Amino acid sequence: MDERAQPAPLGFAWQVKGADGVITRLSPIIFVIGVLLCGLSVLLILPIIADLVTGSPTLGPFVISLVITTFFGVAFLLAARQSRDFALDVRQAFILTAASWLVLSSFSALPFLGIGVDFTDAYFETVSGLTTTGSTVLTGLDTMSPGILLWRSELQWAGGVGIVVMAIVLLPFLRVGGMQLFRTESSDNSERIVPNAFSLMSWIIGIYAGLTILCALGYIATGMSTFDAICHAMTTLSTGGYSTHDASFGFFEAPAAEWIAIVFMLAGAVPFVMYIRFLQGDRAAPVRDPQAKSLVLFVVVVALITALWLVPHLHDNFGHAFRSSLFHIVSIVTTTGYATTDYTLWGPFVVGIFFMLMFVGGCAGSTAGSIKIYRHQVIFVVIRTQLLRLSGPHRVARPQYNGAPIPADVPSSVLAFIALFFVLVGLFTVALTAYGLDLVTALSASATAMANVGPGFGDVIGPAGNFQSLPAGAKWLLSFEMLLGRLEIFTLLLMLDPQFWRR
Amino acid sequence: MDERAQPAPLGFAWQVKGADGVITRLSPIIFVIGVLLCGLSVLLILPIIADLVTGSPTLGPFVISLVITTFFGVAFLLAARQSRDFALDVRQAFILTAASWLVLSSFSALPFLGIGVDFTDAYFETVSGLTTTGSTVLTGLDTMSPGILLWRSELQWAGGVGIVVMAIVLLPFLRVGGMQLFRTESSDNSERIVPNAFSLMSWIIGIYAGLTILCALGYIATGMSTFDAICHAMTTLSTGGYSTHDASFGFFEAPAAEWIAIVFMLAGAVPFVMYIRFLQGDRAAPVRDPQAKSLVLFVVVVALITALWLVPHLHDNFGHAFRSSLFHIVSIVTTTGYATTDYTLWGPFVVGIFFMLMFVGGCAGSTAGSIKIYRHQVIFVVIRTQLLRLSGPHRVARPQYNGAPIPADVPSSVLAFIALFFVLVGLFTVALTAYGLDLVTALSASATAMANVGPGFGDVIGPAGNFQSLPAGAKWLLSFEMLLGRLEIFTLLLMLDPQFWRR
Repeated sequence: MDERAQPAPLGFAWQVKGADGVITRLSPIIFVIGVLLCGLSVLLILPIIADLVTGSPTLGPFVISLVITTFFGVAFLLAARQSRDFALDVRQAFILTAASWLVLSSFSALPFLGIGVDFTDAYFETVSGLTTTGSTVLTGLDTMSPGILLWRSELQWAGGVGIVVMAIVLLPFLRVGGMQLFRTESSDNSERIVPNAFSLMSWIIGIYAGLTILCALGYIATGMSTFDAICHAMTTLSTGGYSTHDASFGFFEAPAAEWIAIVFMLAGAVPFVMYIRFLQGDRAAPVRDPQAKSLVLFVVVVALITALWLVPHLHDNFGHAFRSSLFHIVSIVTTTGYATTDYTLWGPFVVGIFFMLMFVGGCAGSTAGSIKIYRHQVIFVVIRTQLLRLSGPHRVARPQYNGAPIPADVPSSVLAFIALFFVLVGLFTVALTAYGLDLVTALSASATAMANVGPGFGDVIGPAGNFQSLPAGAKWLLSFEMLLGRLEIFTLLLMLDPQFWRR
Repeated sequence: MDERAQPAPLGFAWQVKGADGVITRLSPIIFVIGVLLCGLSVLLILPIIADLVTGSPTLGPFVISLVITTFFGVAFLLAARQSRDFALDVRQAFILTAASWLVLSSFSALPFLGIGVDFTDAYFETVSGLTTTGSTVLTGLDTMSPGILLWRSELQWAGGVGIVVMAIVLLPFLRVGGMQLFRTESSDNSERIVPNAFSLMSWIIGIYAGLTILCALGYIATGMSTFDAICHAMTTLSTGGYSTHDASFGFFEAPAAEWIAIVFMLAGAVPFVMYIRFLQGDRAAPVRDPQAKSLVLFVVVVALITALWLVPHLHDNFGHAFRSSLFHIVSIVTTTGYATTDYTLWGPFVVGIFFMLMFVGGCAGSTAGSIKIYRHQVIFVVIRTQLLRLSGPHRVARPQYNGAPIPADVPSSVLAFIALFFVLVGLFTVALTAYGLDLVTALSASATAMANVGPGFGDVIGPAGNFQSLPAGAKWLLSFEMLLGRLEIFTLLLMLDPQFWRR
């Protein structure tokens, strides 16, 4: 990373030579990051317009951020302009993934620095935004400038589409955490990510933007202000969960808006490949997708159980209990993190369920985080196969997924991911307790960061709380954990592995 | 199970015919259970003597228990006397394992029923004993009859040796949770557990008894009463943790006794195969064993970190802080569960560490429970291999354990075990919250039961607390979870699988 940070003559072909003599050219990576920074500049225009129109005092910081970001974006583009070689190899793809999230989160934090938020909080809020986690350190959202509110929503929106592109275009090639299960028929096995990635990206961005517009229109139809509708549509589709109000979704008290949110949180948490197939003529794609079906079935069943439990315990009517349960269950399972009320007051059973829901997650190839549906399905199949093998050792049962045999390296990739997920949640919990956080706060903070959900449990960081009061060290730990979770752990962990750089 | 419970003419050859036509004879299983029940009768003699000598009122219940247990033990032996065929096949071995733990825990509960403990509590206390968990529902231990105190210790002692025999003789053949890693050179691959198991069992019982006597003598030398020394030696070697005092080990306030406990808890948590090899002339066996080395290194390092943290925070001197940390860390990691003090008052960092330590466990082939050292080592190797494969996809790194390649089916067995471990801890946590337990109590109760540790966290079931006040339903859930954890999950889960009985 140091080598890239150094100033250099324009057009120089950056490269890292491994111990095995293989040269990894860094210039294509720098070029892509330059493109991404220019994209970030474009996103900065919207808050500037909003602050100009409303005469908000945060206009200055946004203009300065725009200048800095554009300068570096153009500089990176120029520095690597002779290297527009998008046929990245696996090593370059890994470096690009990790580097782009780290570089973009640094530049994206600039506007927050400009409004007097300290560096720790600015970085935490930005990472929480880009990773679509949604944990916030800011209070007084209701009186904040439209520019800042828009910027937070845009961070999640951009992070959301970034993760879908990464999950569909890159990860299946990189074989991270069992994602090789989703290598498409058109996948190229030469370990070079081919230019048809651009067509795939266009589809993804088009669908994502279209769904966001539909969601915003839906919100407006329920009586939400256009500004709130746009901001919330961006954080709904991205399953991010940032709100423009301290009371989150509870501000609106509009059942219709909650239903719109339920639909579009789920729309963001199903595989985007499903939409592409549907639009390309495969009308049965949504019905056939094994992850989407399980996700919807799961949230409905859990919401029914929760509602049936709430009716006698909160003396609630079933209709309200079911909608409220479904809203929060979808919010947690899709790793969005909206809340209309402090559900931790609903009693220990609900707290128990909702805590465990953090470990479920949405579908692979969506904006949702956490362990994800297909990994649970693969575990289930693996455990089932083990049991069959134990009861009849002579039969060798071949594990299947969605009607096809699971590739040999997928089970251990998936299981290693899950083991690492829990080990890291545990280690970060211990590290957080060293900062004086109690067990529930530390454990739920660690889990909510790794799973990119947003709120935790306990008085401090619960759905009615805020991450503001945590010690700075804890915020840095959580920022790192959010990135780890978002990048499917292995992608980022690999960068910390000396072996990766040595050979 | 129904078929076995029916009355039948003596000597009848019980059998279950599977859908595939394969006949599983149940009579060898009944014979072994008969032997085990007679063994239980022998164990009942010690409390009877103790109560006779001291003139305790619990004498009657023990005598009645002896009569009932001996009657059924002899009846089982006679019923299956023509079937002393110990060459069990895999299905018989699974049924035997699950059935023997269920039958023995029922008969072992009889003495508690006789002293007015209700059935739920009697069963919980017995299962907690036999599984060497050590969670207790009894209070007023200090004034309890010597018979009952001795019985609780004997339950753990017998459960401890039972689990070592199961882990060394049975599980490697059954390929449960990656235990096939420990198939010895002398293992027979015909899938019949051969009679040389008897020689192995004799070694195990001899070593176990010898270590228990050494431990008791050590305790006596530190000034403990002979009765307390015998009771505690039995619950130390079995890493069970039942005490004869409500204050657990804190009653003695004897640093020397704590050191003895540290040594013998570890002695119970290292692989017993190591002792056998050592006694058979391989003097380097203890130094070479990869699990034992890691276990000792791990507890010492964690105790150092904890002690260094405690010195400034509790204004303690290093010597005391280190001994106290090491005692409790060894107690939790070996899944014993002794406490000298309420360590949950040592602050959130210690609570965080100690909570996570529940998921470590001792070595395979010992009396300790939880995930166990070798599984952590296998995960580490698997994750390491995954990272290597990601950074250089052309190299196929073959995972190694203790200098030898890991058999192909071990990683997924181990990883499936760990995934199931966490999934079940989560599901039981949710079920426990339905009984009104708060998140910390439910989660730590679930974890401590599955890991067979003993105490949990929180005000109710923490090291200073007791499981007495939990609702009956919660106690039954935890009893089942203790058995699941003790039988390496799969062994018991398989019995609930219709597929196992169908073919």
